[in-house]
Order: sequence, then structure tokens, then C-alpha cells
Amino acid sequence: MIDISNITSAQNKYIKQITSLKSKKERDKTKLFVAEGERLVYEIPKDYNIKYFVLSNNYLNLMNKDRFEKNFPDKKVFLISEELFFKISDTVTPQGILAVCEQKDFNKNDIIKKKNPFFILLEKINDPGNLGTLIRTADAAGVDAVFLSSGCVDLYNNKVIRATMGSIFHLPIISNIDFNILIDNLKNNNIDIYGAHLKGTKYHYEIKLENGCGILIGNEANGLSNEISKKATTLIKIPMLGKAESINASIAGSILIYEAVRQRILSKRI
Amino acid sequence: MIDISNITSAQNKYIKQITSLKSKKERDKTKLFVAEGERLVYEIPKDYNIKYFVLSNNYLNLMNKDRFEKNFPDKKVFLISEELFFKISDTVTPQGILAVCEQKDFNKNDIIKKKNPFFILLEKINDPGNLGTLIRTADAAGVDAVFLSSGCVDLYNNKVIRATMGSIFHLPIISNIDFNILIDNLKNNNIDIYGAHLKGTKYHYEIKLENGCGILIGNEANGLSNEISKKATTLIKIPMLGKAESINASIAGSILIYEAVRQRILSKRI
Repeated sequence: MIDISNITSAQNKYIKQITSLKSKKERDKTKLFVAEGERLVYEIPKDYNIKYFVLSNNYLNLMNKDRFEKNFPDKKVFLISEELFFKISDTVTPQGILAVCEQKDFNKNDIIKKKNPFFILLEKINDPGNLGTLIRTADAAGVDAVFLSSGCVDLYNNKVIRATMGSIFHLPIISNIDFNILIDNLKNNNIDIYGAHLKGTKYHYEIKLENGCGILIGNEANGLSNEISKKATTLIKIPMLGKAESINASIAGSILIYEAVRQRILSKRI
Repeated sequence: MIDISNITSAQNKYIKQITSLKSKKERDKTKLFVAEGERLVYEIPKDYNIKYFVLSNNYLNLMNKDRFEKNFPDKKVFLISEELFFKISDTVTPQGILAVCEQKDFNKNDIIKKKNPFFILLEKINDPGNLGTLIRTADAAGVDAVFLSSGCVDLYNNKVIRATMGSIFHLPIISNIDFNILIDNLKNNNIDIYGAHLKGTKYHYEIKLENGCGILIGNEANGLSNEISKKATTLIKIPMLGKAESINASIAGSILIYEAVRQRILSKRI
């Protein structure tokens, strides 16, 4: 049996909480976030703390209740009208299901000590679509962790979450990192850091990416900051053979990630 | 001297034409399209037929007139108010410059006969951002031509044009192609066609992409159609090492494009 309570008022404290979680400030304060949509909700792993679900009446009528109970036993569910769901939803055509979850903390020190790790470091990525897409590619590539500098768009922004297509739940992603400290730390652990830079001295395929390494990608408009560029082991570039001045940040990052995958598979590291 | 006429009425035929060009039907009928924004306008090559420019009063006051005259001698310019520009613009904060251009035709047969060519074939790509981004990557990679199947989002959709960041002007892009005929044609010219497919039999880096080849990418939700998959020389896949089920279509395409670039540079084909 699903434990369901009805909510009818937009002034209800849970409804107000969901609306308040559209703001990063409130997400930071409460350490909560909203995952909306059926596909995304079913990607939430068992080790995530789901506070409660909100379903619309229509969704409840049409849903696979067995699947829900099996995946989310003993969870609190609030039932609301389609109109109210539309009001709190972040999408134009809401499916009628969302979960309020606790943000997961990862132990940075354990992650850094992994053997032969493969990390992605994102400095001040601004566009939610780019951040989400990079996380999705990192997941597909079996990356060990993604580090986000301070100044990146918020990981729990609903557009970021949507663009990850569920990958936000699949690998450790650690926000608000001081890259000066992190990169020193990684280099002390023999992890080389390769920064994507238009003034890179080597092409990406000329670099040995099969050992423990981190790939460092900068802001869409400005690239990597000078300060952080200087800390990279080597700055690498992607051949630009046509008339385009640059390529999209999530594309550049993904090309580098998959060059590392190619090398790591061929060297039998993975 | 720039040849400037004032337009004050929203009923003027040029103003009405610009508004009508937001519709694909009208673009198809007139073979015209709108390029908006300073950066994009200055990417328009000399061999494009620009019908006329529209500038706002503010833009005219602040613009570099010498640069404009040097790049676009003897062009017709219409001057309108900020309010009217805002009405016809496709952006939230218009810069105050747009050009109405003729769509360029390319000779498919000449293109196919290039020596050792590198082509991209896009089947039913739906999302304007994905199409624009793939064109930008293809440009960066020095691709010889991009072929779009019928059912792709319109090349001259303003979101596509914007996402290309000017690359729409840098390489031949040919729309509305019957891929059944094109692929036969390419294979008869010894150009192998590699289709990205979740059920691919080889990884992308196991394929020899240094000779004349075409990379074939399918729709975001459904991938390549069965009909077209069967026509590919080989179906290739990208290693999926984590928990993501798939990667974004423009990311997948770009990874394949740059694997070909790597091989072609190393084999000294380019």
C-alpha cells in the first residue's frame, strides 16, 4: 500500500517548499532538490534519501502502482490536483510525478585516492544544457567523478537535471570546489590534469590519457581562467580545420572524454 | 556611402516579408532566410546573395560604418525604429541588425566527386540546437559537406542558424536529401558510410575512417531508421561504460567526427 495524503491548498507547507526549491539559495539552505518526471524519478538510486513524492490525480489513476511500491517502499506520497501540479511544475506539460530528495554528499578524499581514476573538472560552466550534457557524457564514459568549480551553474537547477537524463544519479558530482586546491591535491596523487585551451600546445590525441587523469574544461565564452590554466599539467587543443573559431564547450569536453575512453580501453585499463 | 531608406510602417512589404520568413513554408517558397545579429551578419561570405539589410536607429548610430561598407558595398539598407526591430526580431534583446539572404544551392554531384571526402549525413535530426551544434562541429573538423535528410528540422530555422555560430556559411549543407539514393550514390563512389547505432558491431575507433567516408547520425529519440541503417557499410557504436543508456545525438556525432579527424591527420590525409 502506498501511504497517500491529499493536499488541496497551495498554501500547504510541502507545496510551498517545492516552489521555494526553484531558488538555488533555498536548495543550498535545505540541501534538498526536486526531481520531476517519471523517467527521472525511477533513476533515483536506493542510497538517495527521498523525502516525499507528489503525484497528480491523473498520474495516480494511470500509474503502475506495483512498480512504484517495489521501487519506493514506505515512501510518503502527497496527492494534488492537475491544476496545482501545473503550478509547481517546471515543465510545460507536467507528467504529474515529482520527488523531493536530499542532495547527496560524497567523500572527496576517498574519490581522489581511487586507482587510475578518470575525472572531469568543469570551471564556471554557465549553460544548464551544457552542464547536464557533460554529466551525461561523463556517465556514459564511466568517469569516476565530476568536480564543479564555484561559479558553475547550480547542479540542482531543473534544466541541468533534465539535460543529465538521469545521469545526475549515476556518478559522484561534487560542487563548489576550489580548483586551486583540488588540482594541487590531484597532482600530488600523480593525477595529471589536461586543460582544454585554444592555445594548447598539443592535440588531444597526442596526450597519454590512459593513466589516472583529469580533463579540465572552462567557461563557454571565456574558456579556462588564466589562474587555473597555469595549474594544468598540459594545455591541449582540438584541431580546428575549418572556419569555425571554436566548438561548443560540451562538445569539446565530450571529444576529450572519449579520446581518453579510447586510450583506456586500448591499453586495457578498463 | 550606405544607401539607406527609412521604413516607419509595420505594413511595409519588406517588414512583412521578414515576419513571413519565420515560417518554413515561406522560406521554402521564396528561397530566402534571415540572418540576425552582428556576429552572424559579418560571417556571410561574399558569394552569398544578400537581398537587403535592416538596421535599427541605435545600431546605425553606434555601428562601424567603414567596416560595414567595406564588407557589404552597394547593399540596400532599411532603417527602422527600435520598437519595430523588436517586433520583427527573433531574439529577446535584438542587436538591431539583420540581413535577408538568398539560400545557397550547392551542386551535389561536384561535392560527391571530391577526392577522399569526409561527409556527415544527418537523418531526421529534430532539435534545432543539435543540428546547429553538429554543423558547427562539422565546420571545425573541416568536413566537406553535410547532408540533411527530409524530416530534419529546417536548416534556416533561426535557432539552428544561431547554434551554428556562423558555420552555416562555412561549408556546403544540402537539405531534403533522399538518403536511399544518396547512400547508393556515395557507395558507388567508394565512399563508406558508417552509421551510429546502439546495436553497432564495432566501436568507432576500430573503424578505418581515414579514406573517403560518411558518418551517419539518426534522430534523437529513435536513432537511425531501419531502412537507412541497413544501407550503411558498417554500424558503429560508442562505448557505454557507465549507467547512461545513451548520449546526446550532437555529442555522439561530434565524437565520431573527431575520431575521423584524428585518423585523417595521423594518416596525413589532411
